[in-house]
Amino acid sequence: MTEGCLLSYCRLFKNKPSIEESQDASQAGGEDSKGRIIYGDYLQLDKITTAQVLQSELQGNKIHDEHLFIVTHQAYELWFKQILFEIDSVREIFISGHVRDERNMLKVNTRIHRIVMIFRLLVDQFTVLETMTALDFFDFRKYLVNASGFESLQFRLLENKIGVQDNLRVPYNRRHYKDYIKGDDTETLLDTEQEPTLLKLVEEWLERTPGLEVDGFNFWERLEINIFDGLNVEEKKIEKMPESEEKEKLMAELVKQREHFTSLFDEKRHDHLVSKGERRLSYKALQGALMIYFYREEPRFQVPFQLLTSLMDMDNLMTKWRYNHVCIVHRMIGSKAGTGGSSGYHYLRSTVSDRYKVFVDLFNLATFLVPRHWVPKLNPTVHTFLYMAECCDSSYCSSEDSD
Amino acid sequence: MTEGCLLSYCRLFKNKPSIEESQDASQAGGEDSKGRIIYGDYLQLDKITTAQVLQSELQGNKIHDEHLFIVTHQAYELWFKQILFEIDSVREIFISGHVRDERNMLKVNTRIHRIVMIFRLLVDQFTVLETMTALDFFDFRKYLVNASGFESLQFRLLENKIGVQDNLRVPYNRRHYKDYIKGDDTETLLDTEQEPTLLKLVEEWLERTPGLEVDGFNFWERLEINIFDGLNVEEKKIEKMPESEEKEKLMAELVKQREHFTSLFDEKRHDHLVSKGERRLSYKALQGALMIYFYREEPRFQVPFQLLTSLMDMDNLMTKWRYNHVCIVHRMIGSKAGTGGSSGYHYLRSTVSDRYKVFVDLFNLATFLVPRHWVPKLNPTVHTFLYMAECCDSSYCSSEDSD
Amino acid sequence: MTEGCLLSYCRLFKNKPSIEESQDASQAGGEDSKGRIIYGDYLQLDKITTAQVLQSELQGNKIHDEHLFIVTHQAYELWFKQILFEIDSVREIFISGHVRDERNMLKVNTRIHRIVMIFRLLVDQFTVLETMTALDFFDFRKYLVNASGFESLQFRLLENKIGVQDNLRVPYNRRHYKDYIKGDDTETLLDTEQEPTLLKLVEEWLERTPGLEVDGFNFWERLEINIFDGLNVEEKKIEKMPESEEKEKLMAELVKQREHFTSLFDEKRHDHLVSKGERRLSYKALQGALMIYFYREEPRFQVPFQLLTSLMDMDNLMTKWRYNHVCIVHRMIGSKAGTGGSSGYHYLRSTVSDRYKVFVDLFNLATFLVPRHWVPKLNPTVHTFLYMAECCDSSYCSSEDSD
Amino acid sequence: MTEGCLLSYCRLFKNKPSIEESQDASQAGGEDSKGRIIYGDYLQLDKITTAQVLQSELQGNKIHDEHLFIVTHQAYELWFKQILFEIDSVREIFISGHVRDERNMLKVNTRIHRIVMIFRLLVDQFTVLETMTALDFFDFRKYLVNASGFESLQFRLLENKIGVQDNLRVPYNRRHYKDYIKGDDTETLLDTEQEPTLLKLVEEWLERTPGLEVDGFNFWERLEINIFDGLNVEEKKIEKMPESEEKEKLMAELVKQREHFTSLFDEKRHDHLVSKGERRLSYKALQGALMIYFYREEPRFQVPFQLLTSLMDMDNLMTKWRYNHVCIVHRMIGSKAGTGGSSGYHYLRSTVSDRYKVFVDLFNLATFLVPRHWVPKLNPTVHTFLYMAECCDSSYCSSEDSD
Repeated sequence: MTEGCLLSYCRLFKNKPSIEESQDASQAGGEDSKGRIIYGDYLQLDKITTAQVLQSELQGNKIHDEHLFIVTHQAYELWFKQILFEIDSVREIFISGHVRDERNMLKVNTRIHRIVMIFRLLVDQFTVLETMTALDFFDFRKYLVNASGFESLQFRLLENKIGVQDNLRVPYNRRHYKDYIKGDDTETLLDTEQEPTLLKLVEEWLERTPGLEVDGFNFWERLEINIFDGLNVEEKKIEKMPESEEKEKLMAELVKQREHFTSLFDEKRHDHLVSKGERRLSYKALQGALMIYFYREEPRFQVPFQLLTSLMDMDNLMTKWRYNHVCIVHRMIGSKAGTGGSSGYHYLRSTVSDRYKVFVDLFNLATFLVPRHWVPKLNPTVHTFLYMAECCDSSYCSSEDSD
Repeated sequence: MTEGCLLSYCRLFKNKPSIEESQDASQAGGEDSKGRIIYGDYLQLDKITTAQVLQSELQGNKIHDEHLFIVTHQAYELWFKQILFEIDSVREIFISGHVRDERNMLKVNTRIHRIVMIFRLLVDQFTVLETMTALDFFDFRKYLVNASGFESLQFRLLENKIGVQDNLRVPYNRRHYKDYIKGDDTETLLDTEQEPTLLKLVEEWLERTPGLEVDGFNFWERLEINIFDGLNVEEKKIEKMPESEEKEKLMAELVKQREHFTSLFDEKRHDHLVSKGERRLSYKALQGALMIYFYREEPRFQVPFQLLTSLMDMDNLMTKWRYNHVCIVHRMIGSKAGTGGSSGYHYLRSTVSDRYKVFVDLFNLATFLVPRHWVPKLNPTVHTFLYMAECCDSSYCSSEDSD
Repeated sequence: MTEGCLLSYCRLFKNKPSIEESQDASQAGGEDSKGRIIYGDYLQLDKITTAQVLQSELQGNKIHDEHLFIVTHQAYELWFKQILFEIDSVREIFISGHVRDERNMLKVNTRIHRIVMIFRLLVDQFTVLETMTALDFFDFRKYLVNASGFESLQFRLLENKIGVQDNLRVPYNRRHYKDYIKGDDTETLLDTEQEPTLLKLVEEWLERTPGLEVDGFNFWERLEINIFDGLNVEEKKIEKMPESEEKEKLMAELVKQREHFTSLFDEKRHDHLVSKGERRLSYKALQGALMIYFYREEPRFQVPFQLLTSLMDMDNLMTKWRYNHVCIVHRMIGSKAGTGGSSGYHYLRSTVSDRYKVFVDLFNLATFLVPRHWVPKLNPTVHTFLYMAECCDSSYCSSEDSD
Repeated sequence: MTEGCLLSYCRLFKNKPSIEESQDASQAGGEDSKGRIIYGDYLQLDKITTAQVLQSELQGNKIHDEHLFIVTHQAYELWFKQILFEIDSVREIFISGHVRDERNMLKVNTRIHRIVMIFRLLVDQFTVLETMTALDFFDFRKYLVNASGFESLQFRLLENKIGVQDNLRVPYNRRHYKDYIKGDDTETLLDTEQEPTLLKLVEEWLERTPGLEVDGFNFWERLEINIFDGLNVEEKKIEKMPESEEKEKLMAELVKQREHFTSLFDEKRHDHLVSKGERRLSYKALQGALMIYFYREEPRFQVPFQLLTSLMDMDNLMTKWRYNHVCIVHRMIGSKAGTGGSSGYHYLRSTVSDRYKVFVDLFNLATFLVPRHWVPKLNPTVHTFLYMAECCDSSYCSSEDSD
């Protein structure tokens, strides 16, 4: 990949560090005598490519396929590391308030999209592991004793940082997921439960969606009025129809629709759904999301709309990853229950659930879409600010990178 | 993945090592106080997930995307390790003569197929790296100075072990590829040039294809007779046609065909093509491959035929990997030439060539296919042995694994 | 793709049809005045590329994304056609008894593998449809009224031909799936319920696995003896351990294991599980499958083993296709229930179930694996015939294709 | 997919057409007696699933794999239809000037991204065709006579509409590509050569990039000044170094750099490169593209930057599609040349070239990147308008869709 750097071009632009700095760098990064960085040192391949120790070999019965098993899991962990790195950087942009400078939206969007692309790869990665049959796995699984993918710290961190809710988790063999994480790692894990999740941060950002202000455009009230006006018009049309089975059906449907939309504007019901875990975003954030949906083509909402779409992509791919995991476990060990009670297979199946879909509200908003002519018209004022991005702090408004 | 091992089932079948053994294992493999292996220790995650040191950060200007750059390359190297492991095991089966026991063909086939699946993943993996733009790359490439993917030892080993021929390699900036590999690694690399390549081993195996024996079925002579008989029949048909442009065309084509097939049965011409690098297999091996092609449905040839197909898949995917690499380099650094002469981009492009296709002969045999009724009929003797596999050594003929 | 056919080569080998034949062919296949077949006519592109009529456009409100919706579904149906073609050809080989000539196993295997590759593509195809958002879909879904993917005849045929069992289907809105198929198609569908399914045909083939003969090798009895001998040896080892919690645990596990394996050899219990739909294969077929598993490296079992693996791949991918379908429906319409009762989303979710996994027994056999030294040793007689394929009919034993 | 529409919800919102309209619609769209649209009629499955006529079968020798060959090509053509539909809609937005209302950028971007996703699928689709071996293909390729993928009208249209330049095309067998397209289709093809290509339209749009105005921000002049100032600073640094080999090298590199950047600001040289086909965009458009690159994080440039990235993705994937095509042709027919001269294989290989990369300039701009502190600082005026999108026409500034 770095052939480009053989070009003199790079050399020239290098900001040469002072001698002291470069010595440190040389020790850490691995340079040759001429200060050139060596590929293998840079990537620390001495660590990466020597980390495959087969338990079966240690115990005197080397089983070929254990190597694949190890490498595949290491590749998963390597990519989990990258995903965590991206999630953390996105959370940092939100936490620091940099997201208020809309110049940072490109970064946020690009990084969530990158996570999506990584998860797509991770789903495909199961096709490699599937070249191992149940019989090959049987030959060495006894040597693993209890080691379990359930113990992947990084995957739990990832879930927590995105916002999988503790009380929505499916317990495994009646024990909490944290019981499967060892030592210091438990602390690391507990820490993440205290940090703001991506869900929480996106929620706060959605709550600030311009146009929601009650003393301004007041999107929510306008929408409510338009929807019920619209339904009334529908009702009158239906009433004028001659009596028929069709008419009755339509009227029944109208009643359902009215109920359905009434629920949308009922904050108490919303809070009730949140308490049951069926909704995850605050009432205000939900409004912001719907507003972005409806006005997605306004210049200022285009990138936010892409972000909401990418968040759903990410959620969807995590759930597909879980499902592919279930499939390969079924293949490797069948569906028999263990002594402890539920089998690994059945436990994993139960996690392929909307309870683990963090941004489930973004999906379910699809049930509240309305015809375009019901969407409140923008007035000139709001229209203008939807063409203008916000730059919260003049110090950011330069071409410096604020990474 | 290993949830299955939480089941008691595994525990029971474990051949418990003696106390001394288990102590060693415990140190190397990482067990907790109860002898359970810990997931993170088993996978040596302390090495894998701490090997990401950003040069840009060391030099005081942390660039976010360098992390992706490192992780992607590490993932490539991890999978190269796995591919080398599979290639070595397949070569070992061939070298040890185990391949003569046809029970081992399943293993050979499965492992080459696994390499195919890994390469498919590696091609897709570029989609992740493509989330980095040329501008993101520019921000940190100066810190890499000269480190170059060209220096990947494992990729060179892989090429050598499969059978990329030294004299067919494209020199980079007029220097040999070995000049880019440092220190001890050069020796490792030179060693592989002495070892039998996969190409060589497959060649020897093809030369032993049953049915080639001159004093037996004598496939090659029969095929030659049939083909020229067939062409003569065609010629007579054409001669009977009334004079016409069409007739002339067909006759001209027939002449071409006769020349083409004459070349197939001309051993000297074959050797000449080999010397030019246009063919890679011996004359006898080529015959074996064509025999397997024509009689692929015979029980004994079904798995060998799959193997030849998988070898082509592997070759094809390596070349697609190279091409995808070219594309991303074009994207990251453009196509400008460096001071040294040729640019990285143009060099890489030149390696997307049939010179790097090790099993190119298997592709080109497609030009020597003939109608089914020209293929020599099997006589009862040869037919029988194509229904019977060979077991060279009775000691293998048990259900023990000879991994 | 067919550039090769511009080569004279093809022309020469063409068996020219008589004038009458060629006239028919010309009408049906589309040739130009010189008898050349025209690409667009050959592929009937006049049908394929003119079949996109947008309902929204017909009704005066053309919505751009409806075109994608139509093309995606047409591409699905095109590939379903191909899958049905392959399934039918494989069933034909089994029904006609050609499968007894083991030369035909390559075909069977290749075609099931092809279905696997197609399903892999179909799973990926959802990524294209995902470029349409719920809001884009909302704009035209009203014009589709009731048209539903549920009405895809080809998908139902596919399920039936593979062997999805009628009584295991999840009813949709309390109505049977056949109620959603219209007119003549119902008959076509009912017909497939009478034809032998792929499951049934594979079952019959497995029942004939050489080595199962009670008066021959008698695999099943030998296996039973070995397993219980093995468990007894384990028991004695455990008994010798000093009393401890560990000992108790292991003993409890042993009891479980004994129960588990006892169930394997209990034909009545098997039949009970079959009646509940938890097992699908006959008792004898299950034995055949396990025998192929254990002796998969024997030359004669290598291709059959690959076939069993491919059947699982196919099942897995169908289930992944269903799951991806669920995900996109969630995205497009949310999870709200309709008037009729259950929502489309929840119905579809319920079909992502082992009830729809036709070859579920092949997965669950993974719970009955045993250490290699428990597997009955082959005696010389059985060993010989596992090295020899069967050719049932000498008339097949020529190099003619019996497609 | 359309299960959602079984919900009453859709019914309600349907704008019922008048009786006359609905009769037409019913005929065209296929409704049942209750006005419900039937799935199979809607998708015109009677056309789609009956369009597979095997030439081999017509000529009395049905070859199984011809069915796959036909279906695969039909699937390609189906997707080409979709891509053309998207390209045409994007071109329409540009041609009509709607793109000046930046609300339409989301659409443009989404549709180009959709083409990218389709091409990704089309590249993967070769894995299905690869399940056919050269030997299977040989059995029926004689029946295809001359039909050639080279004759795909839609693919040529696609190339022309995107902007593959006529004079950069590689002639096939010394004949122009149009000679391979028959009858009326030639006209259709010639028409596209007169229409504005996507390249041309993007070029015009880039030329309007805000900030290029000579009497305004004057990006280009500022950039030129900054770059040469920067190089001068570098030069002084180098001059201060003690004499050494390193110093000489750096100085030589600096000279190269200065030449390289001098060429960037030399309009005549640019026009010369354009005349040779090495550059494709106008000088002004190139400036716009580079400006978007450097200020990509400015709110108003975020979506334009994504668009440039997607255009490169599209180009890259078309070229990968070509390369995958080459690989399968190599596999199916080998690399032998035909009577006509060059072989299909070699011709196709030659089209995997930068000559066919329409947006090649966007890639090559990577050679003109500079350190961030060389990029001209935005002044308050220009900064403001990069936070404000343009809405050219108040009539568009409503929430109506202008599809």
